[in-house]
Amino acid sequence: VKASELGEFALIDRFQDILGPGTAPELIIGIGDDCAVWRAGDTFLLATTDTLVEGVHFSPGAPWCDVGWKALAVNVSDIAAMGGEPLFALVTLALNPDLPIDAAGQLYVGLREAAREYEVTIAGGDVVRAPQVSITVALTGRAQTSHGLPLLLRRDGGRAGDVIAVTGTLGDSAGGLLLLKQHRRGDLARAHLRPHPRLALAQEAARLGIQCGIDVSDGLLQDIGHICRRSRLGATVHADALPISDALREAFPDDALTLACTGGEDYELALAGPRHVLERLQAASGTTVTFIGELRDGSRVRLAGADGRDIEMSAAGWDHLRATGSRR
Amino acid sequence: VKASELGEFALIDRFQDILGPGTAPELIIGIGDDCAVWRAGDTFLLATTDTLVEGVHFSPGAPWCDVGWKALAVNVSDIAAMGGEPLFALVTLALNPDLPIDAAGQLYVGLREAAREYEVTIAGGDVVRAPQVSITVALTGRAQTSHGLPLLLRRDGGRAGDVIAVTGTLGDSAGGLLLLKQHRRGDLARAHLRPHPRLALAQEAARLGIQCGIDVSDGLLQDIGHICRRSRLGATVHADALPISDALREAFPDDALTLACTGGEDYELALAGPRHVLERLQAASGTTVTFIGELRDGSRVRLAGADGRDIEMSAAGWDHLRATGSRR
Repeated sequence: VKASELGEFALIDRFQDILGPGTAPELIIGIGDDCAVWRAGDTFLLATTDTLVEGVHFSPGAPWCDVGWKALAVNVSDIAAMGGEPLFALVTLALNPDLPIDAAGQLYVGLREAAREYEVTIAGGDVVRAPQVSITVALTGRAQTSHGLPLLLRRDGGRAGDVIAVTGTLGDSAGGLLLLKQHRRGDLARAHLRPHPRLALAQEAARLGIQCGIDVSDGLLQDIGHICRRSRLGATVHADALPISDALREAFPDDALTLACTGGEDYELALAGPRHVLERLQAASGTTVTFIGELRDGSRVRLAGADGRDIEMSAAGWDHLRATGSRR
Repeated sequence: VKASELGEFALIDRFQDILGPGTAPELIIGIGDDCAVWRAGDTFLLATTDTLVEGVHFSPGAPWCDVGWKALAVNVSDIAAMGGEPLFALVTLALNPDLPIDAAGQLYVGLREAAREYEVTIAGGDVVRAPQVSITVALTGRAQTSHGLPLLLRRDGGRAGDVIAVTGTLGDSAGGLLLLKQHRRGDLARAHLRPHPRLALAQEAARLGIQCGIDVSDGLLQDIGHICRRSRLGATVHADALPISDALREAFPDDALTLACTGGEDYELALAGPRHVLERLQAASGTTVTFIGELRDGSRVRLAGADGRDIEMSAAGWDHLRATGSRR
């Protein structure tokens, strides 16, 4: 059996079975959420890592500066998904020895820009030789706390009846990738190349008492599915309620809904919590927060049309090994 | 200019120039030591990351179980090099989709073995698709403390007159790699495939007050050179004093000294400190600790023969991009 036949999530389950459950008393959250959470003295550490591989996660023609930005930003998005604060990063650059120094330099310029934007210190890393370029960031952060307890947005923090809300608009990144493949630029392409995780809003949500969240990286329905699986619930998402930009509707009038539901890499936040708390978040934040559905008893993620009937999507999202997502 | 023309250390300098110095007050040690050190509340965190790339750091025929062990062990070695205690790891596996699941599974079996040996919790990670297999571990640990201050072995902690000591024997790993290329096994091959970092001894050294150390990963003379550069000193290493195993002398009678000086990947410790403190460490430890030289004013690392004259080595060690080391 090959890795590609099993798919990413089944593989991770297999690896987790081999490793066994983490039994250290300091481990608050292990494999299965956006970050690991570890208690170190009086601090609740958050730790996450993400890799961008040339030819898989970015095309060989992508501006190196944007690749550097995105490599850090996607990790910041994982810290945001827990409601935390990023602290410091380690950067591993795997370099083809033929890569021009200036290209590698531009990559670090992009890293620096994202580090300044999100107040991250790049504290170390590694440079290795490899046949193609990849960049791995390991980012450490900390949870906000209240009376010594961590304020966390967790995948398993959902409750039946919770309203589901998302920030910003969905599908722009996937639309932007399609345009980039046609050598077109614009706001959608920028959304793909330079995602801006919703760090401040996520922190505000955690402070207001929201306990369930995830970043929209694999595709909305798949990411809501992660919440459902970990919270042992189902969900209904209302297609008509999804925030879709005018730019996406104009560029992809027939596919905008599919891109919004399954496109991935939006790095927006999906939150679940009581309606009145999410309304306070809407009022307090400068970012658009849209109510798109509810968590319910059950185990399925339903996408409901205006007529109340289910809409079927061909692919629920993006699997990093099977390559069924729209991003390939 | 290509990356390969600049070489690993010049590249890292270039990247560090772009990033600028870390200015966060919590950053105790940034780029340039075996680990970054970050103050989080009452804890001094250690953070390091290392990558093994198929075809670069391990051959396609290496047992996957050993690759998994080594991927974690080399990171534990970085924590040991600071005198610290490992806590939890994030593991990123870049998989060729054609890799058999069982191979990937064996890799995690090896990871688990090393995690149990060194009491590390694997708390998360990432699985990505890539043309060839690589494994990146990001390991977080903490410094031992005394009266609220961290007990650290630092590259810049050397003083003129310090004695240089190393643990175990040197060159076995490089010799083992040469034998493995001839499809031969044995103790040297095991030293290459399954390094055992000197974690307990390193912690004891830090508690005894040793303040300068590094792990022998790039090759002894190059690693002593890292201490010298960061401590703004020179060093004399006595060739006759180097601990070389009988197995290495028998297998490579003409090259044992070169392998011991430049071979790399021993994952032994090199320490520098006052003679009487290192003698206490010798007495307290079950591990062989050998005095091999001294730190001196100056900037050069001298390898001195029995007659007191300098011995010249063709390559001081192992540069990960130029591929001049003996490990290719």
